[in-house]
Amino acid sequence: MKAWEKNVREVVPYTPGEQPNEPNMIKLNTNENPYPPSPKVEEAWRKLNLSAMRLYPDPTADMLVKAIAEEYGMKKEQVFVGVGSDDVLAMAFQAFFNSEWPILFPDITYSFYDVWAELFKIPYRCPKLNERLEIEKNDYLQRNGGIVFPNPNAPTGVELSLENIEEIVRKNQDVVVIVDEAYVDFGARSALPLVEKYDNLLVVQTFSKSRSMAGMRIGYAFGSEALIKYLNDVKYSFNSYTMNRTSLALGAAAVRDRKYFEETVQKIQQTREWTKQELKKLGFEFADSKANFIFATHPRYEAKELFEALRREHIYVRYFDKPRINQYLRITIGTPQEMEILVEFLKKYIKK
Amino acid sequence: MKAWEKNVREVVPYTPGEQPNEPNMIKLNTNENPYPPSPKVEEAWRKLNLSAMRLYPDPTADMLVKAIAEEYGMKKEQVFVGVGSDDVLAMAFQAFFNSEWPILFPDITYSFYDVWAELFKIPYRCPKLNERLEIEKNDYLQRNGGIVFPNPNAPTGVELSLENIEEIVRKNQDVVVIVDEAYVDFGARSALPLVEKYDNLLVVQTFSKSRSMAGMRIGYAFGSEALIKYLNDVKYSFNSYTMNRTSLALGAAAVRDRKYFEETVQKIQQTREWTKQELKKLGFEFADSKANFIFATHPRYEAKELFEALRREHIYVRYFDKPRINQYLRITIGTPQEMEILVEFLKKYIKK
Repeated sequence: MKAWEKNVREVVPYTPGEQPNEPNMIKLNTNENPYPPSPKVEEAWRKLNLSAMRLYPDPTADMLVKAIAEEYGMKKEQVFVGVGSDDVLAMAFQAFFNSEWPILFPDITYSFYDVWAELFKIPYRCPKLNERLEIEKNDYLQRNGGIVFPNPNAPTGVELSLENIEEIVRKNQDVVVIVDEAYVDFGARSALPLVEKYDNLLVVQTFSKSRSMAGMRIGYAFGSEALIKYLNDVKYSFNSYTMNRTSLALGAAAVRDRKYFEETVQKIQQTREWTKQELKKLGFEFADSKANFIFATHPRYEAKELFEALRREHIYVRYFDKPRINQYLRITIGTPQEMEILVEFLKKYIKK
Repeated sequence: MKAWEKNVREVVPYTPGEQPNEPNMIKLNTNENPYPPSPKVEEAWRKLNLSAMRLYPDPTADMLVKAIAEEYGMKKEQVFVGVGSDDVLAMAFQAFFNSEWPILFPDITYSFYDVWAELFKIPYRCPKLNERLEIEKNDYLQRNGGIVFPNPNAPTGVELSLENIEEIVRKNQDVVVIVDEAYVDFGARSALPLVEKYDNLLVVQTFSKSRSMAGMRIGYAFGSEALIKYLNDVKYSFNSYTMNRTSLALGAAAVRDRKYFEETVQKIQQTREWTKQELKKLGFEFADSKANFIFATHPRYEAKELFEALRREHIYVRYFDKPRINQYLRITIGTPQEMEILVEFLKKYIKK
């Protein structure tokens, strides 16, 4: 070890999920949307003034913040934007989780929470999901330094009821509660209406799933004006110009096309329900997912072997080699055609 | 104060410089390039596949990293990219500055260093520039937890010789030394050749100035493979997908157009030298800037009043209301036409 290495921050290097790129692959492994972005995005794209790229973007990201605020009926001062919801969440962890008490998040959940907690040296505890893979509300009523959970939860797809969420927020008004709604548009109830009532609630959403724009890196959050101001203070202390000119223009165009958004979400929901029926017929078991993926297990087949068999067919799903969930596969909802090919393969596999 | 506010990270909110947006303004306040990005950027732009925006970008940013590595004759493992050099520097502060000894940077320098140090709770000391606004090399040979300075320095434009830089790096091999070369392409010598020799040296550059792409937010760094790996470990622990698909494609196209880059830089250097002569004739005093700006003072005029007079003419320059430099203006080098208008106004102003 070199002398300078003594001062290097020790982190457990996080390995991002694989991003295969094959011409005829069926990519159901990172919860991307199978449909392209709104046609309005292409319009905004064509209108972009490329020579203006020499100039810094607006540090307040006003164009995008305004579009989001208007579309959701909020004030601009209640909206924060970042480079994907990962950026928004990382900023929120830094801004709000500075207690000596541990923050709380589920043992089975989005795999970045413990990574951020480690990076920022935040103590944490992970209450266990129950046997039905549900968040147990009562686990979040113990003393803590902050709370974060996805709703619906990832990778389970299970929704926590809005009543339970409200109780968690109401009984934890001494800390900030973050509800990570990356997948909420696919059928769960958003906690957004609670933002007016509780100034300690941050609701985080993203353009990566329901808006078909994972490639643009846009995340956002709603909260009380006080909360959003604190978040912006940290953001401006980190990097004033996080959102580039293309993100601002294309993001604003995307969020204003409500019709396309609703149609796309509906198609994915229909395909999800069809896929659930087919998987059930084949003996798969899964909780009732409200997200754009299904987290399924089969009582007679090893998940890892099935994962590898699918891979050989160039069908990519997500396998987590972790305790309690290593018999599950997380299958993103693609187009009807893609899901038919998946189901056809599974029919043959299960028969053997 | 609400109970949850007790755990909020206290930061001195950083206010980014003003970004006026008027049709006929002359914008010389944030060191942007007066010329548009390379025509190759427009080509890459037209070729972009918008429907692929539904997919995550490559987390390794390989397309861009490869282009930079090839253009500078480095290995891909020696290159790191981020959302502007601010993002690169913020990650580097977090990754490398974890000593109990204070880090060192000049008292007059890029205004973000102390903001990051405060945000990440890093102790710091700020040796004073000498009377000629130069970095005193010997100040950086005291015991420390890391070193960072721009070369040429901002907002002074003054270069530190490569010999002095090498001595600082060589005599501080127990810490990481960051040379922030945002403006190096406009005439200073880069420390890049030292990277092969010293594995504790990080050289940071940006697309925002010499590449005319401030609006795209692309920064990068060169260092030993070990250093870059540590930086990536922190980056992957923060946000795996920082660079969006447009940044990757357009950035790669920009960096590969060396001819356009060299022509643009040369034009700006010529305009800078012309501007220096004109300012000198008017009685302005300034150090010999190697950057795309001039940091000038006039013995008979108040800088702040001049700043405001220029503003009324829709000519925006940068004024820092800070000790030791509050009689200076930082004037970005624009097009020859823009600088002529500036000089014409100053001639009238000085005469009065």
